[in-house]
Amino acid sequence: MQPVRGPLASEPQTVLVPRFCASLMEMKLPGQEEFEASSAPRNIPSGELDSNPGPGTGPSPDGPSDTESKELGVRKDPLLFIQLNELLGWPQALEWRETGRWVLFEEKLEVAAGRWSAPHVPTLALPSLQKLRSLLAEGLVLLDCPAQSLLELVEQVTRVESLSPELRGQLQALLLQRPQHYNQTTGTRPCWGSTHPRKASDKEEASLREQYQNPLRQKLPPGAEAGTVLAGELGFLAQPLGAFVRLRDPVVLGSLTEVSLPSRFFCLLLGPPMLGKGYHEMGRAAAVLLSDPQFQWSVRRASNLHDLLAALDAFLEEVTVLPPGRWDPTARIPPPKCLPSQHKRLPSQQREIRGPSGPRLTSAEDRHRHGLHAPSQELQRTGRLFGGLIQDVRRKAPWYPSDFLDALHLQCFSAVLYIYLATVTNAITFGGLLGDATDGAQGVLESFLGTAVAGAAFCLMAGQPLTILSSTGPVLVFERLLFSFSRDYSLDYLPFRLWVGIWVATFCLVLVATEASVLVRYFTRFTEEGFCALISLIFIYDAVGKMLNLTHTYPIQKPGSSTYGCLCQYPGPGGNDSQWIRTRPKDRDDIDLGLINASLLPPPECTQQGGQPRGPGCHTVPDIAFFSLLLFLTSFFFAMALKCVKTSRFFPSVVRKGLSDFSSVLAILLGCGLDAFLGLATPKLMVPREFKPTLPGRGWLVSPFGTNPWWWSVAAALPALLLSILIFMDQQITAVILNRVEYRLQKGAGFHLDLFCVAVLMLLTSVLGLPWYVSATVISLAHMDSLRRESRACAPGELPNFLGIREQRLTGLVVFILTGASIFLAPVLKFIPMPVLYGIFLYMGVAALSSIQFTKRVKLLLMPAKHQPDLLLLRHVPLTRVHLFTAIQLVCLGLLWIIKSTPAAIIFPLMLLGLVGVRKALERVFSPQELLWLDELMPEEERSIPEKGLEPEHSFSGSDSEDVSSRLGPLRRMCRGLGERSCPGAVPK
Amino acid sequence: MQPVRGPLASEPQTVLVPRFCASLMEMKLPGQEEFEASSAPRNIPSGELDSNPGPGTGPSPDGPSDTESKELGVRKDPLLFIQLNELLGWPQALEWRETGRWVLFEEKLEVAAGRWSAPHVPTLALPSLQKLRSLLAEGLVLLDCPAQSLLELVEQVTRVESLSPELRGQLQALLLQRPQHYNQTTGTRPCWGSTHPRKASDKEEASLREQYQNPLRQKLPPGAEAGTVLAGELGFLAQPLGAFVRLRDPVVLGSLTEVSLPSRFFCLLLGPPMLGKGYHEMGRAAAVLLSDPQFQWSVRRASNLHDLLAALDAFLEEVTVLPPGRWDPTARIPPPKCLPSQHKRLPSQQREIRGPSGPRLTSAEDRHRHGLHAPSQELQRTGRLFGGLIQDVRRKAPWYPSDFLDALHLQCFSAVLYIYLATVTNAITFGGLLGDATDGAQGVLESFLGTAVAGAAFCLMAGQPLTILSSTGPVLVFERLLFSFSRDYSLDYLPFRLWVGIWVATFCLVLVATEASVLVRYFTRFTEEGFCALISLIFIYDAVGKMLNLTHTYPIQKPGSSTYGCLCQYPGPGGNDSQWIRTRPKDRDDIDLGLINASLLPPPECTQQGGQPRGPGCHTVPDIAFFSLLLFLTSFFFAMALKCVKTSRFFPSVVRKGLSDFSSVLAILLGCGLDAFLGLATPKLMVPREFKPTLPGRGWLVSPFGTNPWWWSVAAALPALLLSILIFMDQQITAVILNRVEYRLQKGAGFHLDLFCVAVLMLLTSVLGLPWYVSATVISLAHMDSLRRESRACAPGELPNFLGIREQRLTGLVVFILTGASIFLAPVLKFIPMPVLYGIFLYMGVAALSSIQFTKRVKLLLMPAKHQPDLLLLRHVPLTRVHLFTAIQLVCLGLLWIIKSTPAAIIFPLMLLGLVGVRKALERVFSPQELLWLDELMPEEERSIPEKGLEPEHSFSGSDSEDVSSRLGPLRRMCRGLGERSCPGAVPK
Repeated sequence: MQPVRGPLASEPQTVLVPRFCASLMEMKLPGQEEFEASSAPRNIPSGELDSNPGPGTGPSPDGPSDTESKELGVRKDPLLFIQLNELLGWPQALEWRETGRWVLFEEKLEVAAGRWSAPHVPTLALPSLQKLRSLLAEGLVLLDCPAQSLLELVEQVTRVESLSPELRGQLQALLLQRPQHYNQTTGTRPCWGSTHPRKASDKEEASLREQYQNPLRQKLPPGAEAGTVLAGELGFLAQPLGAFVRLRDPVVLGSLTEVSLPSRFFCLLLGPPMLGKGYHEMGRAAAVLLSDPQFQWSVRRASNLHDLLAALDAFLEEVTVLPPGRWDPTARIPPPKCLPSQHKRLPSQQREIRGPSGPRLTSAEDRHRHGLHAPSQELQRTGRLFGGLIQDVRRKAPWYPSDFLDALHLQCFSAVLYIYLATVTNAITFGGLLGDATDGAQGVLESFLGTAVAGAAFCLMAGQPLTILSSTGPVLVFERLLFSFSRDYSLDYLPFRLWVGIWVATFCLVLVATEASVLVRYFTRFTEEGFCALISLIFIYDAVGKMLNLTHTYPIQKPGSSTYGCLCQYPGPGGNDSQWIRTRPKDRDDIDLGLINASLLPPPECTQQGGQPRGPGCHTVPDIAFFSLLLFLTSFFFAMALKCVKTSRFFPSVVRKGLSDFSSVLAILLGCGLDAFLGLATPKLMVPREFKPTLPGRGWLVSPFGTNPWWWSVAAALPALLLSILIFMDQQITAVILNRVEYRLQKGAGFHLDLFCVAVLMLLTSVLGLPWYVSATVISLAHMDSLRRESRACAPGELPNFLGIREQRLTGLVVFILTGASIFLAPVLKFIPMPVLYGIFLYMGVAALSSIQFTKRVKLLLMPAKHQPDLLLLRHVPLTRVHLFTAIQLVCLGLLWIIKSTPAAIIFPLMLLGLVGVRKALERVFSPQELLWLDELMPEEERSIPEKGLEPEHSFSGSDSEDVSSRLGPLRRMCRGLGERSCPGAVPK
Repeated sequence: MQPVRGPLASEPQTVLVPRFCASLMEMKLPGQEEFEASSAPRNIPSGELDSNPGPGTGPSPDGPSDTESKELGVRKDPLLFIQLNELLGWPQALEWRETGRWVLFEEKLEVAAGRWSAPHVPTLALPSLQKLRSLLAEGLVLLDCPAQSLLELVEQVTRVESLSPELRGQLQALLLQRPQHYNQTTGTRPCWGSTHPRKASDKEEASLREQYQNPLRQKLPPGAEAGTVLAGELGFLAQPLGAFVRLRDPVVLGSLTEVSLPSRFFCLLLGPPMLGKGYHEMGRAAAVLLSDPQFQWSVRRASNLHDLLAALDAFLEEVTVLPPGRWDPTARIPPPKCLPSQHKRLPSQQREIRGPSGPRLTSAEDRHRHGLHAPSQELQRTGRLFGGLIQDVRRKAPWYPSDFLDALHLQCFSAVLYIYLATVTNAITFGGLLGDATDGAQGVLESFLGTAVAGAAFCLMAGQPLTILSSTGPVLVFERLLFSFSRDYSLDYLPFRLWVGIWVATFCLVLVATEASVLVRYFTRFTEEGFCALISLIFIYDAVGKMLNLTHTYPIQKPGSSTYGCLCQYPGPGGNDSQWIRTRPKDRDDIDLGLINASLLPPPECTQQGGQPRGPGCHTVPDIAFFSLLLFLTSFFFAMALKCVKTSRFFPSVVRKGLSDFSSVLAILLGCGLDAFLGLATPKLMVPREFKPTLPGRGWLVSPFGTNPWWWSVAAALPALLLSILIFMDQQITAVILNRVEYRLQKGAGFHLDLFCVAVLMLLTSVLGLPWYVSATVISLAHMDSLRRESRACAPGELPNFLGIREQRLTGLVVFILTGASIFLAPVLKFIPMPVLYGIFLYMGVAALSSIQFTKRVKLLLMPAKHQPDLLLLRHVPLTRVHLFTAIQLVCLGLLWIIKSTPAAIIFPLMLLGLVGVRKALERVFSPQELLWLDELMPEEERSIPEKGLEPEHSFSGSDSEDVSSRLGPLRRMCRGLGERSCPGAVPK
């Protein structure tokens, strides 16, 4: 099974960092014109650090991502694999051994442990770079060397004046000696390539086979080239020998390299043994230099020694220096989560020329700033009635056939399995809760049926077919309120609900006609967080409340409580007034008291045998309350723990992904297992025995009036208005998140079309008395994530490149067909204890609440300033202002909660909308710069701030990747469906 | 209350790293002879990285810790506080603003947020260092400038030829302008010092007050000096102006510096505005340079420009370089947990000269390698009978008066409170469990009494009075086995136990006489881990087992179970055979069935009213089983969670320390509260009502024979032998840990004396029938930690320096007196539910198990190789060998467990001793180098390995601090008492 992934939004920045785009070299190089195309104008932030302006003439060796470069038709330099072969064992047993390798990061051979180290950022000593420079300056530099084999190469390299013929022969023999590579594939003990020249052909063959089987080879992209650095001390040399070779055509140089790759660069650094580990460090310096993209670019185009040294100097200009007393040079720095943005390496003059001419968004962070709600093209107002809808249909229609053809890929199978299970879990949980909340007007059966029908229809018609329709938190909360409202007025619920649905559909159509979706830009993070936090809190409150309610249904028997004792009384032979005769006690005195017309049988058995349970204890079922609490806590904590397995170090990634993706399913299964094991009479999920609505006595079609007065069908417009607000907010916020630019969707969005579909389905589900559905953020993101296309080739320590998403309608369709078929699961579902579902419900609320930035800021309130994490936010906004913003949010939330607790609770969607107004008012309290960091800007504000003001310094600071990603990632992956919890600790991939 | 601390062993490395000890400067400097004393020969590991040998003549500017330097009488250079004042606002409103400061690490002013950044490792761009060098080379260098005020200084600095008199005046006025300092103390909004020269006197005063009130001032040690770097661009200058001044006498330069400190260095870097942020970066470079200890040392002694530049070049020689493409230069690196060992900066020649001549232990890691059981002096065999004991008494006697005088410090009060609560918790938990295990032969009362008597006596007599005596896991396990053994043979337990005690005391005296304590060196980590893991597993198994046992005592009522129903039967008027008459049912039918000689009263009330409960359900108490389980889980998870609060970011350190230190107490209180709130009849701790032994009918003195045959008093020698082994292992391993060199104990250890005291107390407690006591690791470490003396002055980002421990007998004595007085707490203790104690028991087992390296290695078995943490261990030992070692340990543990499960369980101490043999046999399987990493070396092995082999490369690698500390820290802080859990995540101090 292809490993499926969680929501992909947490890693989009990796795909957006261009490989490299600037040259600091000061000479005109051949072949640079062909790169002009890709060095398109960029929008560069006004970073603070640029101390080396220099003449800066060379154009940018841009490294756009694979797809981009294909589109632009730009030739890209191949990836370079560099290895360091060290000469060891002088003077007795000389041998070459590979001790380090580089693609992006350094891997060091742990000789004693026989393993490659974890990839880490290479650190160098400055003197070794300087020594390397002087060795190269005095040494042999062959650019475009025509050698076709290792032998030819060695001959060329050793053609140095200073060497006597004898020495030259010795040196050549040494250089032709096969190096030892540590081979990770074979066996348990470190397996070294042979050094012995005997049985050369066999060994050669084995060695070549190893070269081919090297797992690294599959990781490197086709066309990758190798560079080899040979370094070491050699006693018979009188003076140091340095050589740098660029081969004209890349050639496979026998078993010189660990991986069978054509070699492009060859660097030899030998000398008399006097410098200690000097040659090792020099070799590392050469390798690190070669692994630098900027240096690579320059040296591929260098035409003489001067160019080579200039490239080295340009490298030196840009290194970061750590002072010796404050940093241990042997410490290994793990690869940063996001590589530095290479376009910082552009000279500042160039930046100024290019910057303002045409802002092109280069990173997710940029995109985020320049209008968070990125798919702005789809959200342009046409000004015509249904203009947006028509445009959506026009945009999507041509893709329709490919929406089915593009699904023909193995990956889609695993996506279907994953999303199917998530959908079914959702259907069960929300179905169960809806049934609970509406006294059976909805239920699990309706949930399955509705999910299947609405989801499948949406997949077939919608603008964004990757969306998964589901019951969501806000709608569930509203339905509960609507139900209690209708009960307060003694209404027939389903007919009333039908009218609400009809009105909502009407209102939504009006919203579609007037292109109201463009207003979505006014929902900033402030609004979303209020929305999400309220719903999450309701989830948590309800889950705990329902659990505690169980302790009323199944009271706990305290000592001295009056609910003790129960007797089974049989109708006496002489009627009610008969005396009870005590017979002579038999042997089994403990069991039978010897009463002839009463016994101590448990109530069910008593009734079965024609008796009548009498006594205060007959209605109490012991142990259920605490056992339910245990089930509740178990499923909650188990789901939480499983979610965190994803970021643990244990098990292979596939297992971890599986456990964490299916955490809810597994938690439910565990709860059911526990319950079945003990066999107590816990309250279970209500499932009808046959295929008919949960509410007894109704057909599948809801009658339009029932027992309600006719005018209620008009009055229903009022709650419908509230529900429309809710549906609009819920649907559109999700749609914006799903259609973000960083997901690289090719087929465009359809905001108006989506809302139109939701409206139609609203009508349908109301008529059938099924739950209402809108797009669910988390499960849709999971769907997209399970369909992501990634470059498989990636260097150690690098994250895979994100290429795009398989946009099609088939996976969703199949998922919902399967969900529909799962109605036949119903008999199994009745074994699910309700406390388990409450636990999952609590988990959803907690997970959603903990995923928003608001929660992080609330936590800041509890942290002393010096222990606060180094968030970008805190670098740019005074702490008191941050706390003030958080406090305002808390107050808003408090007000929402108070409204929710009054009889007027049903108007809460209006109040949610009121958050937009509060946010608008905040502009008077906070500066736009502060709001940019604390929230986002509203459309007017964006226009009101000068372009420069949008780019705070440090915006690319790598160490803040946590915060960066929290600004990038869809913070709105919330409240809906499965929830996502961010787990502490690093994510080993 | 002085914040108390957890076991101090996790941070000892910080105190052991010498400040700096090497000079790479190539010139003869004045005043270097006086440092010869401290540059004593060191044992330097053969580190791999040394590429710049150089002539290396300068002696080491050694920075031993405060205590050491005082001892050696060496003058130490004062600490330097450096700040960067930047000139901003050109051309309109020029002002100086402090934008950065350095002591050890860099703090940057976040201008927008108005706060100092977290301390971080400074990173520089190489060009800025080079530009700084050329500016200094061309600029003004004044060494030993006699200026006495800022005015004089400014006059001296501006006496440059290139300046016209007019410019000079302007420049002087500018330099005298008061800089803006961000003041963290005042108000909520950033409060800037004034720039306006009006009302100068008031402002000046206020500014000086701020300087004094600066919280940084209290942190810096007395004698600290300041260095100021002034940098910026100035339009009216035609060419750059650089000046470097070393003042002859440090002078307070008005409000130039943020903190009121005498200034020693002054650096001016001004120039025409053309270099962008060049001057800012140059200023930072100068500041970082000044903050480097090596550069400081050189520049304090420099006599001319050449010396200054040479010091800068020496700095450049040693910087660590990060390649530009792989590291974002704006990323902030948090301060490393341990600073790099400065003695690496020694030239290699010097190292080789000094290394072998006399190994002086410089770091904890070194110490660890050169005989882990460090206090070897005390463990030298004298060869005479009781020679060790006599030596111990001789060593400790002179300190005896000071053992009481040294306790006169406020810190001792908080230590007493902390340790008292820990001791009482221990007494309750172990007392409760012992009572459970021995059917009341021991109990809580005995536990309190025994702890008080034994603990106080030990504190008065022992060699190491910091030790806290306590019931420990191994002894508890043994006592349980001994009890079931005596029951198997129908023995009178306490008399039998008395004889065991007598024999153990005898054997221990023999061990003291023969100086057997020196054998402790054969208990390597392998043995300790087996010991600890077995005891922990028994703890966990017992805790869970006891919990499950409760479900048998209080069965769960399943539907259809036969244990249903209970009737209260009164003796009828006509005796047993009377008929039961049913009277006419009254109104309250539910309560009263109307039976005249039976009712449904609960059993206790029934008995009270003279009735007799009849029926299968009378013995079942519902809800208790699940509620007990809830209490069990709650106390376990709550204790675990509280322990982890210590490493969270929330709350001030004092609160975090409090919560985590008192986690057990708080967990018990929570459990009691929950239990009291629901008021269920859970099983409670048994406490006698008066001051008498828990076992009814025995006096305080145990009769020597009871009902046992006389020969059992001889046979008791056999179990006594086993117990002696256990006591010896438990006591001595703890003693070794407590007397480690890194705790800097001044008064020496007393291994033989300690064992002697344990033997005497063994006898006493056996006679009185009290529990047995040995030293408890964790609680003793906590005791030492709460008495640690630390330097209060510490730079931002630096951990406080550890100075030593208040060694005295009084705190322990007071703790145990208080414990004795707590016997009157007994009436309160009966409210503690047993499941809560079981939960704490489980917590202790889990905490102890998770603190040992063995557990980490078991976890490695479950981790794919590429996700494994970068442990030093894994860099030096092949993974398969690591797994093999772990597997052998697992097998040993399995065998121990099997033995423990057989009737021969009581011989398990012998088997533990057998682990030493297994470890000896492992020498044939593993190489000494591997064993060094996986375990430790036994005495013979240490001799058999050449000195060099003991120093694997990278041993100082900073990034491995986790692993380093796991090798340093007392891994043996286990099994005994409270347990210590290492929590994931960083520890913000």
